[in-house]
Amino acid sequence: MKNLEELLHHLLKDIYYDEKQIVKALRKMAKATENPELKDAFEHHLEETKAQVGRLEEVFKIIGKTPRGEKCPAILGLVEEGEEVIEKGEDDEVIAAGLLAGAQAVEHYEISRYGTMIAWAEQLGHDDAVPLLQATLKEEKAADAKLNDIAMTSANREAA
Amino acid sequence: MKNLEELLHHLLKDIYYDEKQIVKALRKMAKATENPELKDAFEHHLEETKAQVGRLEEVFKIIGKTPRGEKCPAILGLVEEGEEVIEKGEDDEVIAAGLLAGAQAVEHYEISRYGTMIAWAEQLGHDDAVPLLQATLKEEKAADAKLNDIAMTSANREAA
Repeated sequence: MKNLEELLHHLLKDIYYDEKQIVKALRKMAKATENPELKDAFEHHLEETKAQVGRLEEVFKIIGKTPRGEKCPAILGLVEEGEEVIEKGEDDEVIAAGLLAGAQAVEHYEISRYGTMIAWAEQLGHDDAVPLLQATLKEEKAADAKLNDIAMTSANREAA
Repeated sequence: MKNLEELLHHLLKDIYYDEKQIVKALRKMAKATENPELKDAFEHHLEETKAQVGRLEEVFKIIGKTPRGEKCPAILGLVEEGEEVIEKGEDDEVIAAGLLAGAQAVEHYEISRYGTMIAWAEQLGHDDAVPLLQATLKEEKAADAKLNDIAMTSANREAA
């Protein structure tokens, strides 16, 4: 990796891999909870995430590269925490609170990664990529806020 | 895991492990960069992180548990990304931009985890734990803002 352009390409490959892992994880998490509000939030964000994969493919084109993911241990570790909650949680209220927390950790990770990609794309003059990345960042922030709202208004109390 | 109390204990063990990994990672990252502002930011946050480990030990006491970490794949994956930048970055400007981004991802992950622990500790009535966790959350947010400032004012431009 010899310049910011190559760093951006590398990060883009990581995030492309991440979003595909997140599609699978959201499907599993939506199935694993009986909480209707949480199930709905996961299913809604699943559809958004599929569209985010498409946006990343456009960004690859803008920087002149072929869309290709690269295995990213960070997302695998984050997703594993959600799987542990599903496996070890003894009732639905505990699983819901644990999944909410795990999903918020994923959202925060993504908020940071999209923030970095936007800054790097701006620095490099990839002006067409910026609004695509910003559209996804806005969705990640909204998803985090929605999950936080479910945790704070009902799920944490129900699990306590 | 059968209730929110057990979820909090589990998360606390994860974060205790995480902070100790972050101490090691910050030491490596501070050594790996020639950027004086970034080196200083990593060294400053290294000292903060050591104190955060101590605060977590107090929280263990408050919830009546012995301080003990539990291996957490999420932080191992996040730290691995920084190591990859050090290994594959071809010059110091590229390494600095990559480390800044990686460290911001770690900070965002931690911001989410401390936010969850605060919400759960409040829900469970562990009122003495809340200000300890809030003190660390404030430091994590400040560390992220400092890193962002270095990236946006100089490091990204120098790597481009």
